[in-house]
Amino acid sequence: MDITTAQLSGKTREEHDLIGYMQVPEEYYFGVQTMRGMENFHISRVRLSFFPEIIKALADVKEAAALANRDLGLLDKKTADAIVEACRMVRDGKFDDQFVVDMVQGGAGTSTNMNANEVIANIALELMGHKKGEYKYCHPNNHVNLSQSTNDAYPTAMKIALIRSIAKLEDSLKQLVEAFRAKGVEFADVIKMGRTQLQDAVPMTLGQEFEAYAANLSEEMERLEQNYKLFYEMNMGATAIGTGINADPDYPAICEKYLREITGLPMVVASNMIEATNDTGAFVMNSSALKRLAVKLSKICNDLRLLSSGPRCGLNEINLPPRQPGSSIMPGKVNPVIPEVVNQVAFRVIGNDLTVTMAAEAGQLELNVMEPIIIHCLFESIEMLANAMNTLREKCVTGITANKEVCRNMVYNSIGLVTALNPYLGYETSTMLAKEALNSGKGIYDLVLEHKLMSKEELDNILRPENMVKPRKFLRK
Amino acid sequence: MDITTAQLSGKTREEHDLIGYMQVPEEYYFGVQTMRGMENFHISRVRLSFFPEIIKALADVKEAAALANRDLGLLDKKTADAIVEACRMVRDGKFDDQFVVDMVQGGAGTSTNMNANEVIANIALELMGHKKGEYKYCHPNNHVNLSQSTNDAYPTAMKIALIRSIAKLEDSLKQLVEAFRAKGVEFADVIKMGRTQLQDAVPMTLGQEFEAYAANLSEEMERLEQNYKLFYEMNMGATAIGTGINADPDYPAICEKYLREITGLPMVVASNMIEATNDTGAFVMNSSALKRLAVKLSKICNDLRLLSSGPRCGLNEINLPPRQPGSSIMPGKVNPVIPEVVNQVAFRVIGNDLTVTMAAEAGQLELNVMEPIIIHCLFESIEMLANAMNTLREKCVTGITANKEVCRNMVYNSIGLVTALNPYLGYETSTMLAKEALNSGKGIYDLVLEHKLMSKEELDNILRPENMVKPRKFLRK
Amino acid sequence: MDITTAQLSGKTREEHDLIGYMQVPEEYYFGVQTMRGMENFHISRVRLSFFPEIIKALADVKEAAALANRDLGLLDKKTADAIVEACRMVRDGKFDDQFVVDMVQGGAGTSTNMNANEVIANIALELMGHKKGEYKYCHPNNHVNLSQSTNDAYPTAMKIALIRSIAKLEDSLKQLVEAFRAKGVEFADVIKMGRTQLQDAVPMTLGQEFEAYAANLSEEMERLEQNYKLFYEMNMGATAIGTGINADPDYPAICEKYLREITGLPMVVASNMIEATNDTGAFVMNSSALKRLAVKLSKICNDLRLLSSGPRCGLNEINLPPRQPGSSIMPGKVNPVIPEVVNQVAFRVIGNDLTVTMAAEAGQLELNVMEPIIIHCLFESIEMLANAMNTLREKCVTGITANKEVCRNMVYNSIGLVTALNPYLGYETSTMLAKEALNSGKGIYDLVLEHKLMSKEELDNILRPENMVKPRKFLRK
Amino acid sequence: MDITTAQLSGKTREEHDLIGYMQVPEEYYFGVQTMRGMENFHISRVRLSFFPEIIKALADVKEAAALANRDLGLLDKKTADAIVEACRMVRDGKFDDQFVVDMVQGGAGTSTNMNANEVIANIALELMGHKKGEYKYCHPNNHVNLSQSTNDAYPTAMKIALIRSIAKLEDSLKQLVEAFRAKGVEFADVIKMGRTQLQDAVPMTLGQEFEAYAANLSEEMERLEQNYKLFYEMNMGATAIGTGINADPDYPAICEKYLREITGLPMVVASNMIEATNDTGAFVMNSSALKRLAVKLSKICNDLRLLSSGPRCGLNEINLPPRQPGSSIMPGKVNPVIPEVVNQVAFRVIGNDLTVTMAAEAGQLELNVMEPIIIHCLFESIEMLANAMNTLREKCVTGITANKEVCRNMVYNSIGLVTALNPYLGYETSTMLAKEALNSGKGIYDLVLEHKLMSKEELDNILRPENMVKPRKFLRK
Repeated sequence: MDITTAQLSGKTREEHDLIGYMQVPEEYYFGVQTMRGMENFHISRVRLSFFPEIIKALADVKEAAALANRDLGLLDKKTADAIVEACRMVRDGKFDDQFVVDMVQGGAGTSTNMNANEVIANIALELMGHKKGEYKYCHPNNHVNLSQSTNDAYPTAMKIALIRSIAKLEDSLKQLVEAFRAKGVEFADVIKMGRTQLQDAVPMTLGQEFEAYAANLSEEMERLEQNYKLFYEMNMGATAIGTGINADPDYPAICEKYLREITGLPMVVASNMIEATNDTGAFVMNSSALKRLAVKLSKICNDLRLLSSGPRCGLNEINLPPRQPGSSIMPGKVNPVIPEVVNQVAFRVIGNDLTVTMAAEAGQLELNVMEPIIIHCLFESIEMLANAMNTLREKCVTGITANKEVCRNMVYNSIGLVTALNPYLGYETSTMLAKEALNSGKGIYDLVLEHKLMSKEELDNILRPENMVKPRKFLRK
Repeated sequence: MDITTAQLSGKTREEHDLIGYMQVPEEYYFGVQTMRGMENFHISRVRLSFFPEIIKALADVKEAAALANRDLGLLDKKTADAIVEACRMVRDGKFDDQFVVDMVQGGAGTSTNMNANEVIANIALELMGHKKGEYKYCHPNNHVNLSQSTNDAYPTAMKIALIRSIAKLEDSLKQLVEAFRAKGVEFADVIKMGRTQLQDAVPMTLGQEFEAYAANLSEEMERLEQNYKLFYEMNMGATAIGTGINADPDYPAICEKYLREITGLPMVVASNMIEATNDTGAFVMNSSALKRLAVKLSKICNDLRLLSSGPRCGLNEINLPPRQPGSSIMPGKVNPVIPEVVNQVAFRVIGNDLTVTMAAEAGQLELNVMEPIIIHCLFESIEMLANAMNTLREKCVTGITANKEVCRNMVYNSIGLVTALNPYLGYETSTMLAKEALNSGKGIYDLVLEHKLMSKEELDNILRPENMVKPRKFLRK
Repeated sequence: MDITTAQLSGKTREEHDLIGYMQVPEEYYFGVQTMRGMENFHISRVRLSFFPEIIKALADVKEAAALANRDLGLLDKKTADAIVEACRMVRDGKFDDQFVVDMVQGGAGTSTNMNANEVIANIALELMGHKKGEYKYCHPNNHVNLSQSTNDAYPTAMKIALIRSIAKLEDSLKQLVEAFRAKGVEFADVIKMGRTQLQDAVPMTLGQEFEAYAANLSEEMERLEQNYKLFYEMNMGATAIGTGINADPDYPAICEKYLREITGLPMVVASNMIEATNDTGAFVMNSSALKRLAVKLSKICNDLRLLSSGPRCGLNEINLPPRQPGSSIMPGKVNPVIPEVVNQVAFRVIGNDLTVTMAAEAGQLELNVMEPIIIHCLFESIEMLANAMNTLREKCVTGITANKEVCRNMVYNSIGLVTALNPYLGYETSTMLAKEALNSGKGIYDLVLEHKLMSKEELDNILRPENMVKPRKFLRK
Repeated sequence: MDITTAQLSGKTREEHDLIGYMQVPEEYYFGVQTMRGMENFHISRVRLSFFPEIIKALADVKEAAALANRDLGLLDKKTADAIVEACRMVRDGKFDDQFVVDMVQGGAGTSTNMNANEVIANIALELMGHKKGEYKYCHPNNHVNLSQSTNDAYPTAMKIALIRSIAKLEDSLKQLVEAFRAKGVEFADVIKMGRTQLQDAVPMTLGQEFEAYAANLSEEMERLEQNYKLFYEMNMGATAIGTGINADPDYPAICEKYLREITGLPMVVASNMIEATNDTGAFVMNSSALKRLAVKLSKICNDLRLLSSGPRCGLNEINLPPRQPGSSIMPGKVNPVIPEVVNQVAFRVIGNDLTVTMAAEAGQLELNVMEPIIIHCLFESIEMLANAMNTLREKCVTGITANKEVCRNMVYNSIGLVTALNPYLGYETSTMLAKEALNSGKGIYDLVLEHKLMSKEELDNILRPENMVKPRKFLRK
């Protein structure tokens, strides 16, 4: 349900802020500042609730802050308990529809932070037996946001949400790697021509090719992990610019402790809070890691489309499972639609990386006000990559079959075979054979026999697949 | 309402395609191929219906094709009439919820095209008194898609939808230009320091600065127009690869005629249909024009944030209207949230331009299969730019006020004044004055009088604002 | 010869500027400010002299300014004549080695402008019988730079140099178009399979494919021209920020007149000089046009590499002329090295476009100080594109040959043939034929005859190349 | 000296390759294949010799291969010794002018590899008492390139050269960090206003700001190191596609051993050689790390330009050392030319990262043929970043001075002071004070006393700089 377009009772409560007064529909758990955010930022039509991980992480941060404030005696137990309970309800997804501000917003995330503060305050109020809007008992700023600033609470929450989203991405990646690895095993005996620069090179197995995809992608597990570790560093207690003005000196450590408990993540307070408050380097590096994954997926999907080109006028080495009719005009045509969509996702992720880069560069002095678009791009990239990898695995890779005969015939018709004979015949003779093959259309195998350069047994031995696809001792000079 | 998650009766009809059979809920106007598209492409969670202009343009193209097919005797009048009527109903927005496939899809737009074909076919069937799914009377492929291919119908529809979306963007741009121009007039008498490289340069008026913003943006009208004209070229009748196989030689011209009538746009059949079918140059160039607009908006918003910096420790030349409280921790702080969000939109548009570029580069042979991500990025960029410009105008530019005294005082305290004296005192003397001013903290005006370099009258005359902010005859050597 | 590393006499002259005194080697025509620029900007190791068009255009601008200043009585005839003569000598390339500052520099081009001012002043001094450095007779700032600022002279000169460089680029483009067109004619009778999504589609001729490349690229002529026209607008007379302070009101028009005479280009003074001084939109748009050309070239080169893949295990439809041995290990291997290098140039140009975009966005208030990197990227892109197109034409396109038999056989073995039979056999039958062909490995032609669906004559008529590669009247329903 | 344009004797030797015969000037140590490369690739005018680290690393790889071949009995001792000695002479820089092929080339680096093979072979020939070109005694392919392919030797050499170049970059970075850190100490007592979103926020010290720059950049040391470690993985022994065809199974380990000895780097043979041969992920990730460094430098330089804006009409908190006159028309103007050039370098590096990304994505099947442009971009980015950081440190950061009074006065005139009073006066009262200050132009300090909200002693205590710039215990509720 979309709360902002839902049927409402028409009853309102009055709220005010620095700008003035406003009537807030009674049903809304959010208040005046969220409504200003909605009014000001009609930009992307994508709301916070599009990415539920964001809501969960905001609840985590607000809960940790409330507990720290309680321990420090800054918040009375009753109010703290109500806030904590409200945070848990929010975390459970019961108020997702109340997170309504646009993902793309000015103000460095203030609207997002206030959306959380207001919703939690009003839930807490009801839990304490008050009405929404009776902020003297629990105020969005004075109580829920106590000891915080948007500039510390917002990036900390976003980092937590990103860590969790990337963890899901890693699951998808891991499964995809396994799918490629399984095909590597399945195709271990399919001998085929390797190609460099799209020109026939030397033989390999299709299994080696798919195992290489698995190896290639499996490296990304480490890349993702190494880079999302940068997100463990947070700046709770930095307040406005990192000097910690108006925050208790003990607050960061206590908040860190609770945030670790709540999230199970090894969050750690930054050593230089001023730097941590204006720096967006961790976002840049994670976006780069996503980009690298995208580049690799795109390359692999380009390969899958090449290898399955045909059926008659292409390479036709593999078959992708048919997913949908490929043409309204060409009977029987089936297209590689799954790799195609993965390529497009990759281009999107690369475009998003540029947006992140520009937004990071645009930070000024003590804050980077462009964080919302960075956050938006990262969540979109992560989700689209996960969707793309799941799709690629389920709807394509697991169903790939090999055209074993086609593959084998290409090897034996290829001129590239001559490379395997190089150590035995010498480069000069080999080059002559290659030229003759090219001009005559004949095969290398036949030409060797024709010119009586080797016995059939010898030749067969050299050209046995298992001998061509790995290093081999040969005669010393 | 989201048709795909709505309460359904549970009744289904059976449909089939090349892949096999499928049960389609009775309520759905779309059929088996759309359902395959939904199943295959769970990627961005953004559906065709997110951009209603796309739906309208698909209806336009399908109507024009039906009329052309009727005139050519390829479609009987009764079926043609039903299809035309169905197209009109779709265009009126009555079936928006039936356009359900993901904007990001493989297959070069086939799922989008088939979504339209199936919905229109089933509406037409009902109009003719048949049931949904009775495709022998009106078939998505054989009748609605007749003489077409995804490869001609899809890009043609997308171009029409883009032209209309850009027309709206131009409206927003035009109004923004007018808002800046009005401020140019309002601030015509506000004398201030111009700055180059962030260093004090020479005087100008705030009106000149805002008029320059208007002039700068007004050029984009021509850029947008010049580039969207490239969209008038279409390839209806190209069918699969541009050779026009299976299309009547007269079809393109008749289809062009109807499409012009229906859309009111000067659509024209491409001279080289093979080129037109695989080329995405028009998308690239339009994306570039959007990018240029974004770059300009971003630069202007950077300026607005600089000029309004402060209030005490910044330039403080202008005030942006306050839109929301700026801080939960700093009382009274108000931030330039509107320009900030415009900057972020600009970065997004620039990122999208990169995605478009890469997708265009990835075209192969007779088709560019990456068009869906190109289309998605362009619609997003256009809408976000229009939203950003409307927001900038309504919530920021029209409410800007000048701090006239602050501006004037900076001019008279500036060392840059000496430039105006240059033609009278010479470069050497001027440089000495500048150095003395910098070291002593004194003003140029006072120093000139102190050193008796000019009379007060003479000096006042030279430094009159109207004399400093435009070219001026001075003594010949 | 590199003047800065050449053997020098050891004699020097003393010069000074705002920063202080400096010994300048007697041989140098440039002076203290150029030397500061060299000292400050050791960045890219690419000097102005790398792009001689820049030097020529600086001379043009300085000459026009001198003539305008003379006409306005601001410069005496003798000095003006010497400056004019010096400019002509510079334009003739006699002093290229004196243009030594790094292309990548801070200061918005001041070092470039002063390099020109100093070299011209010292040449003029010698022409008037003085020694280098006797600036009282002809001063780099007071005489050569009179009525100018870096902020007007520098971008105006760069625009002129860019117009001329793009004109050369157009020549290369035009010749490349013609080369493709000639191949289009040569291959007019080579029937081959068209491919969409790398899957076999329907027949076309290789001539159509190459003619489409020609058509595709020929559109870029118009794009380049339409966008470089933006460079005709210049801001001579704008001086520091566009207000024209210290410039004579008549100066712009007179300067415009002389610049038109000298360059033969329809240069025109901007209507809003403040806007013109800080705007870099024309650079952005030209970079976009270069990018679009790069995208198209890259796509075409990808195609050439695909079509020539093989020789045995690829598409092998065309042969690129061999340019160099392809492998030190694989005898006889020849690679498509020319298209490969064009792809790489395209990626570079696209990267440069991003640099231009970011630099344009970074402009602030009355000036964009990032112009030098914009200029550097544009000149590099233009030259590399021209080199790439010349190379592509000379060393690849003109030598391409067709494997006519291979192409023809693929058509007749293809399943895609069935599309041509679609209007005669109906979609259902055609689909069944396609499936049978795929499963049995048989040809469509044989299957039609086997199932007695058509007579051989009828079938041959439909499948005649000239009938399959263009639209065709068929039976009305 | 440029060997290719130098005065030559006119004597030549005849060489041939797969393409045919060619006359090679006697003076050239390179031969026919290098000449083909020069002929084919007139693209960027930047030669291998522009980056001497490349030449050194090629020599390292060739030496290691020769030693491994010798140990394996594939190369006789005499020839091996000559090759090893030739490699050492090349490494010493004595033949830099012989490395003449364009950095931007097709063929996946074959021209670069052959340039090295030919030069080394001819040096070795002379060392053995033969003439250049007598390849039967030492052949570029058969001896120098033995057991190698461009596809393993080229990327391995490039990785070694990059590691060393990045090590130099780290030196520059380290020194820059120290320069910022020293300023952090020097400015420890300069109290100033922090700014978020360009609006006055809360006080901090200028020392904190510069220390944050140091902290921010020091993180890049780890990023660079973590990512260049990816370059230790190499594929010597992979030969053409990673299957190791024609290489001895023991070769990789022996080659690894020698390469470690020669380079002192922990080079390691890849576990999956097929993957290692086509993967460019390490280049992508290193380019990302360079990009992140560029983003940070650009942000810091933007700040330096902002903080030094003025002198009268800007923030004027710091002074950058003057490096050159800023204007030919505005006497006394000095511009922040050093940060400006660093910004431009950053944009270039970001553009290069895009080029690297696209080139990486364009890899196909068993090889990425686009490596040369990747290599070119990386070397350029590394050198420009190192130059930029050295320049920034030497010519800017070390000479920065603070305008202590200006900074202090802004704090005491600021409304932001009220934030420090927030815990004592409450949010409501603070907001009222802020509003009154804004409207009246009065200072917060005076207003507090005027309204008798605090005693002067109390107020002074709270507003003592050391109390405002760090967290502080305050009253519990």
